[in-house]
Amino acid sequence: MAYDLWYWPGIQGRGEFVRLALEGAGIAYRDRAREDGAEAMLDDMEARGALRPFAPPYLALDGTAIAQVANILMYLGERHDLAPSAMAGRLRLNQLQLTIADMVAEVHNVHHPVATGAYYADQKPEAARAAAQFREERMPKFLSHFEAALTAQEGDWLIDHRWSYGDTSLFQLVEGLRYMFPQRMAALEPRYPALIALHDRVAELPGIRAYLKSERRLPFNEDGIFRHYPELDAA
Amino acid sequence: MAYDLWYWPGIQGRGEFVRLALEGAGIAYRDRAREDGAEAMLDDMEARGALRPFAPPYLALDGTAIAQVANILMYLGERHDLAPSAMAGRLRLNQLQLTIADMVAEVHNVHHPVATGAYYADQKPEAARAAAQFREERMPKFLSHFEAALTAQEGDWLIDHRWSYGDTSLFQLVEGLRYMFPQRMAALEPRYPALIALHDRVAELPGIRAYLKSERRLPFNEDGIFRHYPELDAA
Repeated sequence: MAYDLWYWPGIQGRGEFVRLALEGAGIAYRDRAREDGAEAMLDDMEARGALRPFAPPYLALDGTAIAQVANILMYLGERHDLAPSAMAGRLRLNQLQLTIADMVAEVHNVHHPVATGAYYADQKPEAARAAAQFREERMPKFLSHFEAALTAQEGDWLIDHRWSYGDTSLFQLVEGLRYMFPQRMAALEPRYPALIALHDRVAELPGIRAYLKSERRLPFNEDGIFRHYPELDAA
Repeated sequence: MAYDLWYWPGIQGRGEFVRLALEGAGIAYRDRAREDGAEAMLDDMEARGALRPFAPPYLALDGTAIAQVANILMYLGERHDLAPSAMAGRLRLNQLQLTIADMVAEVHNVHHPVATGAYYADQKPEAARAAAQFREERMPKFLSHFEAALTAQEGDWLIDHRWSYGDTSLFQLVEGLRYMFPQRMAALEPRYPALIALHDRVAELPGIRAYLKSERRLPFNEDGIFRHYPELDAA
């Protein structure tokens, strides 16, 4: 039976980290809000009553819903063998995924520093300050952390000798940062050869390659988490 | 053998979510940076090379370090029976813990909206805007989510019929919000009777009661995550 993935239609957003793991592994799913609309998703959440997820994305199967990206990925990792089975490896992968999630939250904060409920246009000077610190301090700090994690491994992947959901997540992080900060990423990328090589390797996984060419892969846009506002970028 | 917990000395911060689970369960640990200082922690992180945590807190034992609060708690839950053992319960608890972590990150963002690396004094007008939205929209949204999660259960606790790390985390969330937003919490608390009752129940767990009376429990202060700036509070 196919999973139901529920996430805002029209953006990659946080849902994309789940889509990439599903697509990479060839796991059957329906992207429900893209089929039925955002209203259907809100109805579905409401119908779950006290057990409703706090926010999309969530993965539904057999009456239950699993929410929070790192939690969904941990489930898929365990059920579909997309993660190490030994405890130390599982925890290390989860730790890295949570650090990716922290960076993604900071990315969102760059264009919405003072109010997630208000428009970017209403917080542009604050966003400019947030972006400067993010580009100069946070990007190198996070990216060098992932570079180090990759160089700590002997194989080609983030953990063990095969790809896991952590690899597809790092791929998406690089994709998103390139879209949002093309100048800054062009300047930084030479410092992180292992991370860029991993990105390229993930792009060549058969499931990912097919997905990226399909209409299921939405383009980045200015409603998502990674947004290209040229005034927030600089080398 | 006792765990080494490493976290910034002098604040409760994110480390407190780990301390509460350890103390509640009577698990032996040394609060290393409080014993040896922050410099020793930075040295310890550095010495871990490519496998170093991105940031404290982390829990060290036998040469490995586990970082990210939700990840540390998942480990403790699994190893020390502080969480359900069946997959559905483990995932649900992790999901709720990650939602608590999201709220804690938003709390930090209230007093540091535009630059985590700059002082509150350098971003006070922006913090006032962030605080207004947080008080009015985000607090009710998160707190009603946890209230609903508690009312979905038959027993006294967040999951199953005994306390888990999710309960100590909700306790700390209420404690921190009361310290940071006393007026707002006084106004909101009547809406969340199950959450407040849970907070009181956790405070009476023998391990927690002893901890709260001890010198190991640091007071809240304006270097931590929950900070009381009166200008950011309102009913």
